[in-house]
Amino acid sequence: MERNIYLNMVSIEEAIKKIKSLLLGKKNILGSEVIPTDKALYRVLSRPVFACYSSPTFHAAAMDGIAVHSNDTFGAREGNPKILIRDRDFIEINTGNPLPEGFDAVIMIEDVVFLDENTVSIEKPAFPWQHVRRIGEDIVATELIFPAGHKISPYDLGTLLSAGIFEVEVREKLKVGIVPTGDEVLDFTLKPNPKAGEVIESNSQVLASLLEDWDCEPVRIPPVGDDFDLLVKKTQALLEEVHILVIGAGSSAGSKDFTKKVMQALGEVVVHGIKAMPGKPSLLGISREGKLIVGAPGYPVSAVICFEYLLRPLIYWLRGENLDDFETINTVLTRPLPSKLGMREFIRVGIGKVGGRYVSIPLPRGAGMITTLSRATGLISIDENSEGFSEGEVVSTRVLRPKREIENALVVIGSHDNLLDLLKNELMSLGEPVFLFSAHVGSLGGLKAIKNKYAHFAGTHLFDPATEDYNFPFIEKILPEEDTVLVNLAIRKQGLIVAKGNPKNIRTLEDLVRDDVVFINRQRGAGTRILLDYYLNKLKIKPTQIKGYDQEEFTHMAVAVNVLTGTADCGLGIMAAAKALNLDFIPLVDERYDLLIRRETLNEPAIQKVLEIISSVTFRQKAESLGGYDLKFSGEIMQPKK
Amino acid sequence: MERNIYLNMVSIEEAIKKIKSLLLGKKNILGSEVIPTDKALYRVLSRPVFACYSSPTFHAAAMDGIAVHSNDTFGAREGNPKILIRDRDFIEINTGNPLPEGFDAVIMIEDVVFLDENTVSIEKPAFPWQHVRRIGEDIVATELIFPAGHKISPYDLGTLLSAGIFEVEVREKLKVGIVPTGDEVLDFTLKPNPKAGEVIESNSQVLASLLEDWDCEPVRIPPVGDDFDLLVKKTQALLEEVHILVIGAGSSAGSKDFTKKVMQALGEVVVHGIKAMPGKPSLLGISREGKLIVGAPGYPVSAVICFEYLLRPLIYWLRGENLDDFETINTVLTRPLPSKLGMREFIRVGIGKVGGRYVSIPLPRGAGMITTLSRATGLISIDENSEGFSEGEVVSTRVLRPKREIENALVVIGSHDNLLDLLKNELMSLGEPVFLFSAHVGSLGGLKAIKNKYAHFAGTHLFDPATEDYNFPFIEKILPEEDTVLVNLAIRKQGLIVAKGNPKNIRTLEDLVRDDVVFINRQRGAGTRILLDYYLNKLKIKPTQIKGYDQEEFTHMAVAVNVLTGTADCGLGIMAAAKALNLDFIPLVDERYDLLIRRETLNEPAIQKVLEIISSVTFRQKAESLGGYDLKFSGEIMQPKK
Repeated sequence: MERNIYLNMVSIEEAIKKIKSLLLGKKNILGSEVIPTDKALYRVLSRPVFACYSSPTFHAAAMDGIAVHSNDTFGAREGNPKILIRDRDFIEINTGNPLPEGFDAVIMIEDVVFLDENTVSIEKPAFPWQHVRRIGEDIVATELIFPAGHKISPYDLGTLLSAGIFEVEVREKLKVGIVPTGDEVLDFTLKPNPKAGEVIESNSQVLASLLEDWDCEPVRIPPVGDDFDLLVKKTQALLEEVHILVIGAGSSAGSKDFTKKVMQALGEVVVHGIKAMPGKPSLLGISREGKLIVGAPGYPVSAVICFEYLLRPLIYWLRGENLDDFETINTVLTRPLPSKLGMREFIRVGIGKVGGRYVSIPLPRGAGMITTLSRATGLISIDENSEGFSEGEVVSTRVLRPKREIENALVVIGSHDNLLDLLKNELMSLGEPVFLFSAHVGSLGGLKAIKNKYAHFAGTHLFDPATEDYNFPFIEKILPEEDTVLVNLAIRKQGLIVAKGNPKNIRTLEDLVRDDVVFINRQRGAGTRILLDYYLNKLKIKPTQIKGYDQEEFTHMAVAVNVLTGTADCGLGIMAAAKALNLDFIPLVDERYDLLIRRETLNEPAIQKVLEIISSVTFRQKAESLGGYDLKFSGEIMQPKK
Repeated sequence: MERNIYLNMVSIEEAIKKIKSLLLGKKNILGSEVIPTDKALYRVLSRPVFACYSSPTFHAAAMDGIAVHSNDTFGAREGNPKILIRDRDFIEINTGNPLPEGFDAVIMIEDVVFLDENTVSIEKPAFPWQHVRRIGEDIVATELIFPAGHKISPYDLGTLLSAGIFEVEVREKLKVGIVPTGDEVLDFTLKPNPKAGEVIESNSQVLASLLEDWDCEPVRIPPVGDDFDLLVKKTQALLEEVHILVIGAGSSAGSKDFTKKVMQALGEVVVHGIKAMPGKPSLLGISREGKLIVGAPGYPVSAVICFEYLLRPLIYWLRGENLDDFETINTVLTRPLPSKLGMREFIRVGIGKVGGRYVSIPLPRGAGMITTLSRATGLISIDENSEGFSEGEVVSTRVLRPKREIENALVVIGSHDNLLDLLKNELMSLGEPVFLFSAHVGSLGGLKAIKNKYAHFAGTHLFDPATEDYNFPFIEKILPEEDTVLVNLAIRKQGLIVAKGNPKNIRTLEDLVRDDVVFINRQRGAGTRILLDYYLNKLKIKPTQIKGYDQEEFTHMAVAVNVLTGTADCGLGIMAAAKALNLDFIPLVDERYDLLIRRETLNEPAIQKVLEIISSVTFRQKAESLGGYDLKFSGEIMQPKK
């Protein structure tokens, strides 16, 4: 079995340097084309442009008033007016009109007194060329307008058209061929319905969109199966049409990964693996004609790192264009970020502005999870020679969304509830939309997040057996010094989520000890886990008696998915999650789910919006339709039991 | 004569507030449409999106290796291996393959020892679901993927396609109708050849390009003449098709300006003039159907201010989208910027990084000069309640070009020479292009700019009659403390620029006193002016004897344009300027034109590039072909005469 093992991995910088040194003679590979000026926005001129016409092309009045001979006006002053006669001494003129032959100045209409239809009086002299835009004031015919290499801005279109340049010669767009590969990948353009073992290919479209952002022209062909000869044929044909070729690996690596062999058939593999995670299995090569070939990893996040950190700088360099750094802001890390020495790591994060500073909440690192890139609003890069960052450290963070969106975003950390999705939706539908970033770390994690000012609010449903109260005893213990408010979101039903039709006939928590029942648990610190342990203790059931007690998930939905897919037979969770996936549900208890908020932030506009939404009739109706929610207290401030 | 006078001008903020309050019920005016997902980049979802499929849709191996039953592996450890039999206990599997029915974990191939074809040994247990991407790990079918109001990023296309979302319902693009008006404006699409009194209309294309940047759909119609009935008919028809209408005034204001009357015919004028320069004659109105109508000023820079500072915020607000502030950096002003109280002023500037800090060089303020917006790399806004800034003050400056381009830009301040255009062109054609910003303030201004670290280098050609040397005596006087280097650019011919065929038969400087000869001068501080005064003094000619001695221009080209257009009969300037405009030239003197550079910056890469270019054979050849240049010393370091 032949395997591609990445023995000679290099850093991203080394990889780029290596390619640059080999392609040095192949820079500025773009031909040129003549296109209409009005279609040339953001294109790059391939030759200098000189003005055809002057602007203005004539001496033009810059004010409404009268055209005069400046000589005639000398000596005019307050109390000693000069009288001017129509046609001989003055001609009425409007802004933009050509100055009549022989006249050399304009007097503003405000400074002219009409004595009669044909006679005016002025009390101020006009200096020569006063209020006149002279020929060529803006543009002189034949002068250099833009040098070659200039990128055309919206304003530049005005300059070019004003100078009578109706066509421009520009560098052609850099064409990038994209070949998705893999027997198991399905062409999204065919709207496929994936069977087991199949995945819908989408990396090619992500790349095509990024390329458009970088002013390139993507040329994508449909996926090619794992057939070496066919792959060579297809890539060779496409290579002739384009400046750069990207071969996208299928999601399966290993023995079927032909990318390296195909690159060897087309030319030479220069970089085989980079010291970056995600992104490690990236390949760079050069075809026999001297064209860059990129082997992109199959996992979507790895592919994006390969596109943005390897391909993008090389594209700008090949075009001879300056490349801006990604925009960054400083954020305070809400969790430690350990990192492997010798590997550059890219960590997706959510960013929010809490208590006047930006905080970042790390997302899961899995390279296969494209949704994490969609959820992320920031990206942290950890250098190869760093072992990572501690909680609370200030870290430079690339922003992935518009800055205003990040600035206005709300962060909710804590227990998960499906109503947070509903809230998210309502917040985005506001006249001035508010982005809600939610991280699910359990109720206790939420309380700590409020204590550390890592979140605007926290979802919590912690039951205290001693007082039979929710949340307050825990708040008293974890953030006794802080002035907080507890607002109810809903009373919700917790119970056992079981497969449709309840095939194993699970009825109570006592069934969990049965030999044929596999349970799926929630993580430590989750309110649901605490609830489970409370009841197990009451029933004198030991965790070790339950199969799957050690298997943890972080959200109700994830628990439900385990049941849906047969990974587990049941789990404790909320009714809405069961209903969302059309599973059965055995209600066990009603519990209070509250939002914890710092009192000092209650009047912030975004928090006010949240309170308005959850108190609204619409929200109540939508929530109740999800199943298992009672919103009679929603939006109300809770008080501890005596 | 009816005139539009701007009596009730309001600030930009007030104008926007007024419109917002009147249009409050008309927000989120966009309908929706269903489009293919791969065409939906940067579109905004009009309804929430839920996943069709899970991702993965099956339990998938996350590593190459063998699928096992985790139960079978418990107890395996170093020195105590477990033996597994093919098909019964293990199945070989590659990354991405579905886990065979009944198997629940994967062991990496690196941890497997093949004893024979069908038997393997392992020395580590596999925990359940080890190296398995479980169904729905990334996306769970039916879960909320994006809320309504979400703007689709390149990554999001990956998420949507992976979730089996092949079509999305998005808000339609905001359509903006553009009506250029004016009898004197020519439609650029017809490639016109302007006669006196005519101008090529281009504001509509500038706006169309800006609108594309703001994700709007521009709908431009050809210019409409100053015919009230026709204007009302055309605007009314277009208004039905679009969400916002922009009426662009011709370059002529005053009695022919119908915009206000047309707006009144369509609805109501709300804002008539804003306290901003450029941009003052902007109008805002609301049609009877409640659509925003904008009356854009005719001058191009005024129009851009109207588009960017009035229209843009209203577009984002109407769409219910967050709008980022323009990106700014702090720059040190190289000249004072006085400003009128009560008016917000926008000053175009060039930006360069000199001596470790950003400096900004103000450009001319004329609202009619579109080229200043093309040349500008920054924009400074001076508040209504500010009287402006002093030289040396640090001012927040909006950047108009990519930051890397600005960071790498070179700034040359001083005397003007046509070779600087040539140099600009060569610098932009480098593999990593360098942008050259040049400001023409005369040789003395250049020396002061080097003294104050406002420029990377300065062009200077100051003749000292006492020593008969160039530049050194002035450097000694103006920056005696500074360690500078003087590098020659060229020896150039100065002389009299006269009309083609020299109709007035001008031969020497003595002709300047003739009654029929009008002269055009250069500004005080210009080397050419100093040269002129030196010779006049020698010839005992008094400035008052010369007609036009008081009329000043800032560049050789501007002098030549005055001659070309008959504004003057002759001026002192360089041969290249005469040749560029096909004028006649009477050589008077050869003079040295040098570049002054601080010694400490000589080794900076960009300065090195300049020195390489001006020493190159190509540059010499190109320069000499311009006429009047001798480049024998070009690139050489000059020494003062004894």
